[in-house]
This record gives sequence, C-alpha cells and structure tokens, in this order.
Amino acid sequence: MKVTVSRKAHFNAAHRLFNPNWSFEKNEEVFGKCNNPNFHGHNYELIVSVKGTIDPETGYVVDMKVLKQIIKEHVEDVFDHKNLNLDTEEFKELNPTAENIAVVIWNKLRPHIKSDLELKVKLYETERNFVEFEG
Amino acid sequence: MKVTVSRKAHFNAAHRLFNPNWSFEKNEEVFGKCNNPNFHGHNYELIVSVKGTIDPETGYVVDMKVLKQIIKEHVEDVFDHKNLNLDTEEFKELNPTAENIAVVIWNKLRPHIKSDLELKVKLYETERNFVEFEG
Amino acid sequence: MKVTVSRKAHFNAAHRLFNPNWSFEKNEEVFGKCNNPNFHGHNYELIVSVKGTIDPETGYVVDMKVLKQIIKEHVEDVFDHKNLNLDTEEFKELNPTAENIAVVIWNKLRPHIKSDLELKVKLYETERNFVEFEG
Amino acid sequence: MKVTVSRKAHFNAAHRLFNPNWSFEKNEEVFGKCNNPNFHGHNYELIVSVKGTIDPETGYVVDMKVLKQIIKEHVEDVFDHKNLNLDTEEFKELNPTAENIAVVIWNKLRPHIKSDLELKVKLYETERNFVEFEG
Amino acid sequence: MKVTVSRKAHFNAAHRLFNPNWSFEKNEEVFGKCNNPNFHGHNYELIVSVKGTIDPETGYVVDMKVLKQIIKEHVEDVFDHKNLNLDTEEFKELNPTAENIAVVIWNKLRPHIKSDLELKVKLYETERNFVEFEG
Amino acid sequence: MKVTVSRKAHFNAAHRLFNPNWSFEKNEEVFGKCNNPNFHGHNYELIVSVKGTIDPETGYVVDMKVLKQIIKEHVEDVFDHKNLNLDTEEFKELNPTAENIAVVIWNKLRPHIKSDLELKVKLYETERNFVEFEG
Repeated sequence: MKVTVSRKAHFNAAHRLFNPNWSFEKNEEVFGKCNNPNFHGHNYELIVSVKGTIDPETGYVVDMKVLKQIIKEHVEDVFDHKNLNLDTEEFKELNPTAENIAVVIWNKLRPHIKSDLELKVKLYETERNFVEFEG
Repeated sequence: MKVTVSRKAHFNAAHRLFNPNWSFEKNEEVFGKCNNPNFHGHNYELIVSVKGTIDPETGYVVDMKVLKQIIKEHVEDVFDHKNLNLDTEEFKELNPTAENIAVVIWNKLRPHIKSDLELKVKLYETERNFVEFEG
Repeated sequence: MKVTVSRKAHFNAAHRLFNPNWSFEKNEEVFGKCNNPNFHGHNYELIVSVKGTIDPETGYVVDMKVLKQIIKEHVEDVFDHKNLNLDTEEFKELNPTAENIAVVIWNKLRPHIKSDLELKVKLYETERNFVEFEG
Repeated sequence: MKVTVSRKAHFNAAHRLFNPNWSFEKNEEVFGKCNNPNFHGHNYELIVSVKGTIDPETGYVVDMKVLKQIIKEHVEDVFDHKNLNLDTEEFKELNPTAENIAVVIWNKLRPHIKSDLELKVKLYETERNFVEFEG
Repeated sequence: MKVTVSRKAHFNAAHRLFNPNWSFEKNEEVFGKCNNPNFHGHNYELIVSVKGTIDPETGYVVDMKVLKQIIKEHVEDVFDHKNLNLDTEEFKELNPTAENIAVVIWNKLRPHIKSDLELKVKLYETERNFVEFEG
Repeated sequence: MKVTVSRKAHFNAAHRLFNPNWSFEKNEEVFGKCNNPNFHGHNYELIVSVKGTIDPETGYVVDMKVLKQIIKEHVEDVFDHKNLNLDTEEFKELNPTAENIAVVIWNKLRPHIKSDLELKVKLYETERNFVEFEG
C-alpha cells in the first residue's frame, strides 16, 4: 500500500542547445533559436515525487520539509541563476536539453532518497514543454 | 482499451499534525509549525481518476455528473469547512497528513465506484505539496 | 532508460452529446445540458506525451518543434474552431465525449510518431474534467 | 476606505462571430475561423468584482455566497451549455464577441448589486484572450 | 512615469467567521459553514504591489528581495500556520474575513514601504474568492 | 463606455542585472545572484491590454488577431530566445530589470496601437514577480 508524495520547486537558468561536434549550420538546423551562442533562458519548474509506504508513527512517506531541503541543496543551489553550459560541471560536456537536465537531477537526488523509495522527476522548461524521468 | 477519466473537486479544512503518543517536544521536532495546537488550514484540491473501458452506448467510461455527485456526497460534504481532527470520525485517531487523507478518501470512494473500474486519488495540500494513492 | 516528453496544445470547438438511436427524452436524461441540439463548446487543452530513449547526438527523445508541428497538422488544424458533430468526419457517427475525442486523437497521432516511442494523450474538456488514453 | 471583493464563475457555450449585414466573404475576412456557420465554443471564465466599504457587523463588503447566487441565476443559468447566437435573447441581434458578452453580463448584474457598490466584470474567452468592463 | 511592481507570497491558516455580539443562530444564518466553532482553514495567496518611479541607478522601483523580506517578516511569519482567531493579536476582536485580513495586512506593511510608493494588496482566500485593498 | 481587451504572449530570454558604472562588489551587493556574468534566464509572460470603445460593426475594441500579430512582430520576434544584454539594441545600455523591460515594450508597442486606445503592459518575470506599466 504505497503512496506517492510530490514537492514542487523551481530555478531560473540560462542555456544554449548545441552539439560541439557539429558545424554551426548543422546546430542551427537542428536546434534553431535554441542554438543562440549568447544563450537564452527559462524558469524551470521541478516536481520531485517519491513513492513508498506510510510510516505509521508520523503518517508520512517522507517528511516534505526534509524533501524540500534535499531539493534545495542538490538542485536549486546548484542550478538557480546559473548558466547551465558555463557555470555547472554537469553540462560542461552534456547538452542541457530538458531530457538531459531531468536525468541529471534524478541522478543527483537518488543517493539522498532512501533506497526503498521510488523516485521520479518532472521538469517543466515552459508551461507547454515538459519531461519526466523515473530511472 | 481503457481510458482514465478525472474530476477535480475541493474542500477547505483545518487540521493539526501530531502523534498523541509523543511528548509535545517530540511533536514539535517532527511536525514543526504543523503541530500548532490551535490548528492551521488548507484549501485541499482533489482529483479523482477512474480507469475503464468506454461504454459504446454513451461514449462514457463513467458519467462525470455521477462522479461529481459521489465526490460531493462522500468527500466534500464530510470534510469541507471542518476541523479534520475534531469534527470527523476518520481522523479522531489518525494523523491527518496528506498521505493519510488520500488513503481515507480512496477508501471512502472505492465502494461507490464500480468494481471493474480502477480508482486513483490525487490530493493537493498546497500548490507545492501533493500526494497520490491508487490502492 | 526512458524519458517522457510532453507538449501542450489547444483547440476551441463546439459539440453536442447524444446517441442518435435514443429518444430525445432518453438523451436528455443521460446527457442533460450537453444534449442541447444547438450545441455548446469548450476550450480543449491537449497534452501529448511520447516516451523513449534519449538520442545521444541531440539530447532529445523527440524534437519538440517537430512534435508541435505534428499536433498542429493532425489535431489543431482539424478540430480548432470547428463543430465536432457537423464539421468533422471523425464524429459524424461517434459521440464526441472527452473519452472518444482522446481515443480519436491518439489514433490520428500514432502513425506520425516513431513506432519505438510510446504515445499518451491527455485531454482537458474543462479545468475540472479531463481524460487520458495510452492505447 | 473601500475594498474590492471578487468571485470567479464559469460557463461553457457555443458561438459564431459575424455581422448579418455583411457578405459571407467580408465576415470571413474580418472574423476568420470565428465565422464558422456551424459554430465553435469556449469555456468562459468570469470574474465579478464589487467595490465598497466593509460592513462592521459582518466584516463583509458583500456576502460571497449571495454574490455567487446572483451570478448563478443571472449569468450561469442563462448562458451555460447554450448556443449564444441561437439560444439567448441577448445575442439574437448582437455579435457575441468577448467585448459584447462582458457588457451584457455587466448590464444583467448591475440591477442586482446594491447601488453604492461599484461593479466590474472580467471575462476570459481563452487563457490568452480576455476583456474587462466597469460600466 | 510610474511602474507597479508585484510580489506573490502565501500562508496557511485556520479561522472562524462570527460576530461575538450575535447569537449562535444569527451567526449560523449569516456565516453558515464558516461559523464552525472548531475552525476551518485556507491556503492564502497574497500579492503585494507597490507603484513608483524607476531608480535610474538600479532599474528598480523597489528591490524584490527587500520586498519579499518585508512580506515574510510582517505577514508570513505572523500568520503562517496560525489560527487567526486564537493565535494573533490582530483578529482577537476583529472578524477574520478576507476583507478584514486584507486591510490588516495593508496596515502592517504600509510603515515599511517608502512613503512615496503607493501600496496595494490582493488576497486570495480560495482560487474563486479574493479581495483587494489600496488604502 | 470603454472595454479593456487583453492578449497574453510570451518569450524566453537570458539576462544579467548590473550597473556598468559600479564595481563588481557593489553590483554583487545590490543584484546578488542576478549579477551572474554568465547570465541566467526566464520565461517571460506578457499581457498587453488596450482600452477603448467597441466598434458597433465588429463588436471589437481591437481585433485580437491583429493585436497578436503586433506583439509577435514588435516583442516576441525581437526578444524571444535572445540574450537581452548582448543581442538587443534596447538593453545595450539599459539594465534589463522587469521594470525597464516593461517600459521598453510599452514604448515599442505604443506607435502600433491607435492613438485613441489606452495601452498597458503587464510582465511576469516569474510567477511570483511581475510589473505593470501604463505610460
């Protein structure tokens, strides 16, 4: 009898989508406006979900205050008001598409969530574009 | 070939999170501001989803008007404008965390949804905190 | 290691819910106000989700610009500002309930999404009523 | 010392935009897809605001329950699940643009709001298009 | 040439609406479910707006970080997770209707906003009920 | 008898807040994380409102399709997927705070809106921070 608990967070960041092994023309063709060498940016909305059994002592699957703090420390403090391509280790060699950002966030959070809890992340790049990853 | 049909509802309620077997200090440590003995409250948003096959006569999995009425009778009329700890039987002995409220709502609705339909509830305590339960 | 990518779209349409094999009274009883012979209408919000592996060259599961164009061509251009009962082939003989519209949209999109990608559609008829279909 | 109190309501309706004194071509040129003779439709979101002084006995400018009932009786019951052009007296001879609907709603509500209260209506035709009228 | 700058905040609280000079029956008649002696509650959303000229050195009318801190100190820390009737000085003798809460918040913020800036508060009690006060 | 008509648009951009006449330390003190020399970014949501009388021929104050096109040409095409500091003439010498961006947008739109219509812009930098300018 498992319940899923979700917490919403957010961060604002700049990024550029491109493949360094391709010509500028090829990048322009594939990534269009997202290939602007001067970067553009987004308000990223993040929903982190963990699924597990309810602790009968607390009535919690996970303490939201603790989950909020884990997201702050391992995601918001790392990515908020940053240039993903230039300011972060994670995207020095990895194209910061919504898909890749979601996988990176999942991998950053996984060690800090107890192993008997399932983890899922949902990342909104805009209100109209979003991705989900559950490992 | 199954379709999931969802209906959104809401109720406003007061609650306090605490474990009566613990000292006030222990409750304060675990539940923080949510342990206020004078209660605080929320606008709860509830999404009830049922999954099943489409009736070829009506084009419905379930009649939304009927589903709306079931939610009103078994959830909204019971919890709206109530103090969950003091005014309801369900939380007299059960800590009204979002997780426990979701399980209670699922159990209250299950007998009123046809047995060949799957049931899921999603409960927003705030825009940033929400839980899901599917039995 | 699969990621789900979602794109939101919308269209505005008129419709009437009824079963031509039933009497007006029976339709009135089952569909109520939705059986208005002069039609009523909705702002339909559509979320199309595809699930697959990330292409290491692009960092994309699917190019959102391409997905947006597929939705435009096969859903928005066909249903936007239309009377679903009178103006479309799909609902000439099929009751345009949210459930049936979701299945029709899924079937229209499926041939245009690569076969190794899973497809899911979510359709909001109103903010409070919505359906999901994944084949 | 005046406070503005607002209440949100909604109705779903079909409509067609056109000027009966113009040719079909002229209507097509001006109203485009909105001129579909078979109609299209919207989920209209309505916000009704009244401004006045707080009654010291109740702490209310206006009782929201009363305001909700006035909106239901004079707007929702009249326009919900209707074809504005065919089913309502108000738009038999008046083009049901968002602008005109807002003015009509304001005029329908004004006699039922006490004369010392200012009245304003805001009408969303879609999330992206909306109008306001305050007399 | 003035610009209005707005910041959104929130707090969760319990309250009861009643007039201590009235009988329980009279309170029940006027305030209905809101008169529950055991309280109910809300997620209050607050928008604080200040209007003034842009400082040419900073490009700011007001520093949002400073405004955020003022709201936290004088509103959120005072009302969040509180029972408005029992835990706050402001509503010991004042009925905590949305109207009165908005006026109280405006009065609490006014001394901390520079006198050449206009101040306005908008308070959502629920998504469907909200009030505004500008002094 | 005037009606206000509003249209929502959006653009995604990168920016950095700083005053070139100040030391890095002074900029860091005033603008904090927003002074990141590598930029950060936002999904800007823009609401453009025009107020005027209803044309009795069309029932429009302004044709939304025309207003949408004006916003696209003079705002979205100029700022979307751009680095405001590096890629635009407007912010080469002007700090791209939300306040300044709103004034710049108002000035760019004003010549394209008929002179007897009032113009107002509302710009959301995030869901929690937004500004308004009406000339």
